[in-house]
Amino acid sequence: MVNFGVVGYGYWGPNLVRNLFEVPETQVVAVSDMNQERLKLVKSRYPSVETTTDFHQLLNNPKIDAIAIATPVFTHYDLALQALQSGKHVMVEKPMTSTSEQAMRLIDEAASRNLVLMVDHTFVYTGAVRKIKEIADSGQLGEILYYDSTRINLGLFQRDVDVIWDLAVHDLAIMDYILPSTPCAVAATGINHVFGGTENLAYITMFFEENVIAHVNVNWLSPVKVRRTLVGGNKQMIVYDDMEPSEKVKVYDKGITVNSTPDSLYKALVGYRSGDMFAPQLDVSEALKVEIQHFADCIKTGAEPITGGQAGLRVVRILESASLSMKQRGKLVTLADELTLSRGAA
Amino acid sequence: MVNFGVVGYGYWGPNLVRNLFEVPETQVVAVSDMNQERLKLVKSRYPSVETTTDFHQLLNNPKIDAIAIATPVFTHYDLALQALQSGKHVMVEKPMTSTSEQAMRLIDEAASRNLVLMVDHTFVYTGAVRKIKEIADSGQLGEILYYDSTRINLGLFQRDVDVIWDLAVHDLAIMDYILPSTPCAVAATGINHVFGGTENLAYITMFFEENVIAHVNVNWLSPVKVRRTLVGGNKQMIVYDDMEPSEKVKVYDKGITVNSTPDSLYKALVGYRSGDMFAPQLDVSEALKVEIQHFADCIKTGAEPITGGQAGLRVVRILESASLSMKQRGKLVTLADELTLSRGAA
Amino acid sequence: MVNFGVVGYGYWGPNLVRNLFEVPETQVVAVSDMNQERLKLVKSRYPSVETTTDFHQLLNNPKIDAIAIATPVFTHYDLALQALQSGKHVMVEKPMTSTSEQAMRLIDEAASRNLVLMVDHTFVYTGAVRKIKEIADSGQLGEILYYDSTRINLGLFQRDVDVIWDLAVHDLAIMDYILPSTPCAVAATGINHVFGGTENLAYITMFFEENVIAHVNVNWLSPVKVRRTLVGGNKQMIVYDDMEPSEKVKVYDKGITVNSTPDSLYKALVGYRSGDMFAPQLDVSEALKVEIQHFADCIKTGAEPITGGQAGLRVVRILESASLSMKQRGKLVTLADELTLSRGAA
Amino acid sequence: MVNFGVVGYGYWGPNLVRNLFEVPETQVVAVSDMNQERLKLVKSRYPSVETTTDFHQLLNNPKIDAIAIATPVFTHYDLALQALQSGKHVMVEKPMTSTSEQAMRLIDEAASRNLVLMVDHTFVYTGAVRKIKEIADSGQLGEILYYDSTRINLGLFQRDVDVIWDLAVHDLAIMDYILPSTPCAVAATGINHVFGGTENLAYITMFFEENVIAHVNVNWLSPVKVRRTLVGGNKQMIVYDDMEPSEKVKVYDKGITVNSTPDSLYKALVGYRSGDMFAPQLDVSEALKVEIQHFADCIKTGAEPITGGQAGLRVVRILESASLSMKQRGKLVTLADELTLSRGAA
Repeated sequence: MVNFGVVGYGYWGPNLVRNLFEVPETQVVAVSDMNQERLKLVKSRYPSVETTTDFHQLLNNPKIDAIAIATPVFTHYDLALQALQSGKHVMVEKPMTSTSEQAMRLIDEAASRNLVLMVDHTFVYTGAVRKIKEIADSGQLGEILYYDSTRINLGLFQRDVDVIWDLAVHDLAIMDYILPSTPCAVAATGINHVFGGTENLAYITMFFEENVIAHVNVNWLSPVKVRRTLVGGNKQMIVYDDMEPSEKVKVYDKGITVNSTPDSLYKALVGYRSGDMFAPQLDVSEALKVEIQHFADCIKTGAEPITGGQAGLRVVRILESASLSMKQRGKLVTLADELTLSRGAA
Repeated sequence: MVNFGVVGYGYWGPNLVRNLFEVPETQVVAVSDMNQERLKLVKSRYPSVETTTDFHQLLNNPKIDAIAIATPVFTHYDLALQALQSGKHVMVEKPMTSTSEQAMRLIDEAASRNLVLMVDHTFVYTGAVRKIKEIADSGQLGEILYYDSTRINLGLFQRDVDVIWDLAVHDLAIMDYILPSTPCAVAATGINHVFGGTENLAYITMFFEENVIAHVNVNWLSPVKVRRTLVGGNKQMIVYDDMEPSEKVKVYDKGITVNSTPDSLYKALVGYRSGDMFAPQLDVSEALKVEIQHFADCIKTGAEPITGGQAGLRVVRILESASLSMKQRGKLVTLADELTLSRGAA
Repeated sequence: MVNFGVVGYGYWGPNLVRNLFEVPETQVVAVSDMNQERLKLVKSRYPSVETTTDFHQLLNNPKIDAIAIATPVFTHYDLALQALQSGKHVMVEKPMTSTSEQAMRLIDEAASRNLVLMVDHTFVYTGAVRKIKEIADSGQLGEILYYDSTRINLGLFQRDVDVIWDLAVHDLAIMDYILPSTPCAVAATGINHVFGGTENLAYITMFFEENVIAHVNVNWLSPVKVRRTLVGGNKQMIVYDDMEPSEKVKVYDKGITVNSTPDSLYKALVGYRSGDMFAPQLDVSEALKVEIQHFADCIKTGAEPITGGQAGLRVVRILESASLSMKQRGKLVTLADELTLSRGAA
Repeated sequence: MVNFGVVGYGYWGPNLVRNLFEVPETQVVAVSDMNQERLKLVKSRYPSVETTTDFHQLLNNPKIDAIAIATPVFTHYDLALQALQSGKHVMVEKPMTSTSEQAMRLIDEAASRNLVLMVDHTFVYTGAVRKIKEIADSGQLGEILYYDSTRINLGLFQRDVDVIWDLAVHDLAIMDYILPSTPCAVAATGINHVFGGTENLAYITMFFEENVIAHVNVNWLSPVKVRRTLVGGNKQMIVYDDMEPSEKVKVYDKGITVNSTPDSLYKALVGYRSGDMFAPQLDVSEALKVEIQHFADCIKTGAEPITGGQAGLRVVRILESASLSMKQRGKLVTLADELTLSRGAA
């Protein structure tokens, strides 16, 4: 049994606590939040759980094995670092930290203490994304040529993070999981429509060493909700539409064929192929439950989580670069070499 | 009655000829094409129409008042210039020309000869786009904050033009018609997946002097067909989905409200507003027929067409800038001042 | 404060208990269920609530003002009758009872004791159905000409009730609420594909005194989930699609116009009208919460609930007649006069 | 080469003529219509085609091998009979005739003269329906349990035929092609909202000797257009949605499994199965062209067309029975034995 302390009982914390109780190997010992009203809610729902406004009580509680952090992004680093230094395993909300520097520091801390550090990239644990990963890994798509995602709706305008850190983080986490390689450069554009606010609409293009491109369109000011990702391979292509009630993943046997005969050094011939569409059945387990189970398994076996610190770092690197590029109207920002290297080592 | 000579009877030419016969004020006298098989097809369908492989016969035919040009882009400038110099009104396929230099030259030629020069931005004449224009002009949307369009499908890979010149030209023409101002800078990214080919997938961001942004996503390699445009205003927002069989235009009474009290110099307050949706009935007339009627009217009255040379030029300027930016991975390209000025003058 | 005893903590009971705690004027004192495991679940979630396997403890508990019944249909009558006889107000799951005889008996019992008797026709309290009612009552639709509903999916095959009593009951409850009159005759067809089972697919046509028709298509064996209702008026028409994430109710300004001039005694002229579509914003409150609030209000004021015993009876009458007709392959079954009369009196 | 005379150049005639010219083995020699304006239209489009207001000129023209009849239903019998008696093959619009008596008479006439008689059940020749037939015949669906079709829109109110003869005829023709057996009884309901008109909305249930049911919902007064058919098998199920732009046919690996152990003589166990969905690629050839090619092949080989007189008769029998049942509010009408027999013989 892994005993948890949960920090933060705002929007996401209740989902964490509920699922931590539903996974047989995990349970919640204590919850900390600075808001007494939120703690009362915890007590009414789970009378057995201890509550406190002092996060340190969780760190000092020897019954607690792991800390789940569901607080604003800017606090992730401090809280996670203290938790690791207190010998607790850590599951931290996405994005992992506010800077890649911080993310690397946490990775080192966890590694030196043999603690499990996991980032809550929830979508990676959905039946849909796991199925896409399975299909991509099977080679069915051929070489992946592009990744194109749109995630827009009338969303909550946030003060501390821009739309990239709020919405694109989901796409980057999914992309990081599915694609075999990591972007080498980023060009992003965006706009802020509210005085004193952050960008509420952004477009990110990512370039890869291979002849691959990725693009993410995020927007807090759309009248309609769209959650659609295209993964284009040279054999098959996937459309992942998270708004579909049941057939979220569709695999199309469609595309082009390029004939490269000697002759076509000068003239490639493009052929078109149109075939069946196939929508595989998806596991409908709640993603967060699957993820918590995975975290418990990693604690038991010492394995690196699928969405461990390295994955969290890779995503933060792109977020950082994208925000930087966006401030300069799309100026290309190169992702430093160590990032690519760190993936190789993972 | 306006008598037409039509150059080019390939993909679009047959639509032109058919509609030129359906508009009571216009008719076709002769068609030229370099392919004898295509000319035979003309003869079998319209025995009364003269056919020729020599374009100059159209220019020299005194019965012909206007030339409609439906040939590849790189030929537009030469054909249109000769037609104008022969005293013929000109309706030219989009994009107007291969360079803005050429477009300006045609504008001057037409102006000096008092001839009507129109670019076939067909979508501008659809019931859907005309309705959007009407709504935008009514002030119902408030200030327009962004324009976001996606135009993707498994399309014909072209050799001479990239996906921007092939697909984005539609979006730019529509945007040019609807928005009250013109972009001042462009950042575009894209990729070419076929050896020796042109970019088959591209993303264009456009910046405006006002706090407005526009983005166009075009792709020849998508397994699904999407034709969707969002026009976000600070009062209402439009979703224009051309794949919908009937309700192509939806107006959403949704958005945010920003309260700027003195206090909020430091802290703007964002409120959310959610209301009804409204799908206006659209005129279902064939766009090309409406457009030809408009061209005939302009010839009669001497008025500048809605999609005249200036509109064609503005679109070519953006295409040019976007291709240039794309070659440099999103480097910002500023649209020269004379463009903005020329719009003011139009 | 209205104190509740809840009978049955299976599929629906947990929703009742949760909402009874969320409405400020109501709370749950005790839950009875014959299954100890279910009662343990109650205790773990709501430690303050008493649990019992003996329904009579609820009846004898003087703190309890009202009984909510969420047990199989065949038990509704007995449990509700005992509750009323013990002086408790009653909220009973749909369908109200197994026979109209039973329903009338309960209505009489409640009336004679001045107790509130409400049937849980949940859909009637959704934002969508309340909006449709508002539109229909406003006269906007003109005269209603037809009501056509489809409610199909891969559903749980039930042993004790057929698909009409399981699914069509929703449509009949909604229809009863929206239409100004009540069917006078029913013809139903259906089929049972499972040996020893009940009909798993059925079609019900209902005739009215006016020139109105209604039809319900229900199916437990559909590969896709459809929840769509058309309400056709001679001025406007509504499409209510419960599978739509946001725009569930669409009002179409479409239809025919019939010109009846003296001349047209022999020849009516049908004209076609096509106009705008309008999707009103809907209240997204949880229907069950709205309903419980209404029940509490009725107890306070003594008013007849919107879905009181009379509404429950009218629905049971149609269910009864439909099952009877279905056994005879669509033989017309006339709804007895007293039903129509009872509505007039309600 | 098969030379055609075409009778009737109203709504459907132009499609016939166009396709008769597109199929290499067929061509049109003459068109007859009682309206001179329509004949002028023929002449302008096809100068080589003879036109006449006198149908008999077609019969007497020895160059004509076959007559295509695209006139109102009530004229089909007379025109087809005369054509057959003049030794011409006949392709007649659906529904074949106004009565089954007439249909049988035509079948006999064609048989005795060794002429090909085909009914234009166009949908049967679409890529979608041919694919469904292929899937059904492969055994993939298992035993077919039900057929459920909805065909509604704001349609033309017709004076001479009701909505069953106008719209349901399509569904019955498709069903006749796909299902291995023929209905034995029909119960239909409907309503007429226009004084002096015919039923504009109808529901038809069909019973089979096997434990199979079929239902068709047709409506001229729907604000939305729906063209959806479910074919439920005990192994797989099909949804055919003709409004989908590309994936019109979806095959679902979903359903129930019924375990019948000796024990379950009294208690069948229903299990649920949910699997992948599959949308096969469809041939997009124009159905009418495929059909005309088939007709030409039958003339050459003497084979019975897929939609020959027997198929036309079976459909007319159901139409007849449905209209009869509808007049009596759903009274069950049994289809006479000879119908079933005639199918066996076909």
